[in-house]
Amino acid sequence: MLFDLNQYLTAKQRQINQALIALFPKEGSPRIVQAMQYSLMAGGKRVRPILCLAAAEAVGGNPEGLIGPACALEMIHTYSLIHDDLPGMDNDEMRRGQPTLHVAFDEATAILAGDALLTFAFETLTTESNHALPDPVRLRVVQALARAAGHRGMIEGQMRDLAAEGQALDLTELKALHSKKTGALIKCALYIGALIGGGKPNQIEALENFGENIGLAFQIVDDILNVVGDPDIIGKATGTDASRQKSTYPALLGLDQSRAMARESIERALQAITAFDRHADPLRALAAYIIERKR
Amino acid sequence: MLFDLNQYLTAKQRQINQALIALFPKEGSPRIVQAMQYSLMAGGKRVRPILCLAAAEAVGGNPEGLIGPACALEMIHTYSLIHDDLPGMDNDEMRRGQPTLHVAFDEATAILAGDALLTFAFETLTTESNHALPDPVRLRVVQALARAAGHRGMIEGQMRDLAAEGQALDLTELKALHSKKTGALIKCALYIGALIGGGKPNQIEALENFGENIGLAFQIVDDILNVVGDPDIIGKATGTDASRQKSTYPALLGLDQSRAMARESIERALQAITAFDRHADPLRALAAYIIERKR
Repeated sequence: MLFDLNQYLTAKQRQINQALIALFPKEGSPRIVQAMQYSLMAGGKRVRPILCLAAAEAVGGNPEGLIGPACALEMIHTYSLIHDDLPGMDNDEMRRGQPTLHVAFDEATAILAGDALLTFAFETLTTESNHALPDPVRLRVVQALARAAGHRGMIEGQMRDLAAEGQALDLTELKALHSKKTGALIKCALYIGALIGGGKPNQIEALENFGENIGLAFQIVDDILNVVGDPDIIGKATGTDASRQKSTYPALLGLDQSRAMARESIERALQAITAFDRHADPLRALAAYIIERKR
Repeated sequence: MLFDLNQYLTAKQRQINQALIALFPKEGSPRIVQAMQYSLMAGGKRVRPILCLAAAEAVGGNPEGLIGPACALEMIHTYSLIHDDLPGMDNDEMRRGQPTLHVAFDEATAILAGDALLTFAFETLTTESNHALPDPVRLRVVQALARAAGHRGMIEGQMRDLAAEGQALDLTELKALHSKKTGALIKCALYIGALIGGGKPNQIEALENFGENIGLAFQIVDDILNVVGDPDIIGKATGTDASRQKSTYPALLGLDQSRAMARESIERALQAITAFDRHADPLRALAAYIIERKR
């Protein structure tokens, strides 16, 4: 039987969305919670939490207590988008098909809602529902998330991204930037899933390798979509990289060579997990999805 | 022998500053680390980490592994100041006697450095030097910090603070605001110190009660200093609350009654820890310091 990725994505997205909703009070939520939910529930693709769940499956695990860390990954991703969109950063007005948070609410609320999502990600790792996980594992998850999201990971990537505006980066610099900005959290998603799923060290390493390569492909496709994508489908403006004179793969290599590079990266990702059995089929399908996606 | 608070503060500040410096690379630090250090090492009073250390002493403990959580408290406090000062929030230009981070660096760097300090606080709780602490204790510290700093704690207080500009709050509303904005993290500092120090449940409760009351006094004094303080000593502009039409204790009660209320609050704090022996003398002296401070 062929693996049905659409069905898989829909089921996992529903599971993640339900878990995210369950984390917040049902009624009478104050403005800060409304703001957090506005961005969190705006229909994101849930790529990071799904990769996390799929990595656990790939090592044969489907443990209780994985959904909390998966939600934490999405919260950290969402906070980074909220702060990235701020007037003091990229000053973007549309995201996931709706006005960005500082447009829909106000700038101060957007700053604080981003802070709150980042903080809540760590709180979520310590709540009852994660008590299925042994304490040492939970602490390793806290550490992995903090490192991936922190000033030697995602934030360092964002700093490099800001510094690169109007600069001509070469391919090595561009890869280094994105291995931090996008790659660190995607790799972390694979690591957390593999760790909690009970993967052996060589399996965890293989899945991190997989993560690095799909992370690179993911970013290349993002850059390509910023050139040729449909704003209505992507849910945000296109052409913004060019107008900001950002170094991108298409700008550096052209569209065809960028597409080829993304394909090669996906090949390497699949190569990294050849030793895995059919439980890794969701990951294999996700790798293909990343390169074919239209948003 | 009388307890010498100045000597105590100087020694603890040195210990905390050394620990904070040791967390960062010695040389070649990238711009994001420079920005984090700029605000972190700007000569803050280190009230929260010192309260944390003093709470551990009060229950008779002086454990290894306490300095990491103490540093984490200061990082979270510093990040909250950085974001509070942003143009999209209070738009303040001076802090701790030097230009605020977004003035000295730039707005995007200030947003990211705040994010990075918040994230690094959680990473710090998971590093080797804290392995002296049992895993369940470390997880409780992660949880306590995340809750105190999060959208039901400090951030909720900041939201209320923003909503209150130009509004006339009554005393109950003002107290509720500050019990979140300033109180939550101060109370958390006492909790963490008491927990790691090995305090019994009734001791931890007493120290949290102490924390709530000095937190209130701390905020009242902050408000008073904003009216009558010396900007050169405080290191930031005064009179800003009045020009922003902020609800403050002096605005609501007048200076004399505000001072009386701060004194009563300190009395209640001291009352909460009467059962403690001389190991709580630093806390008693700190309570007096909070009300007498000029900055």
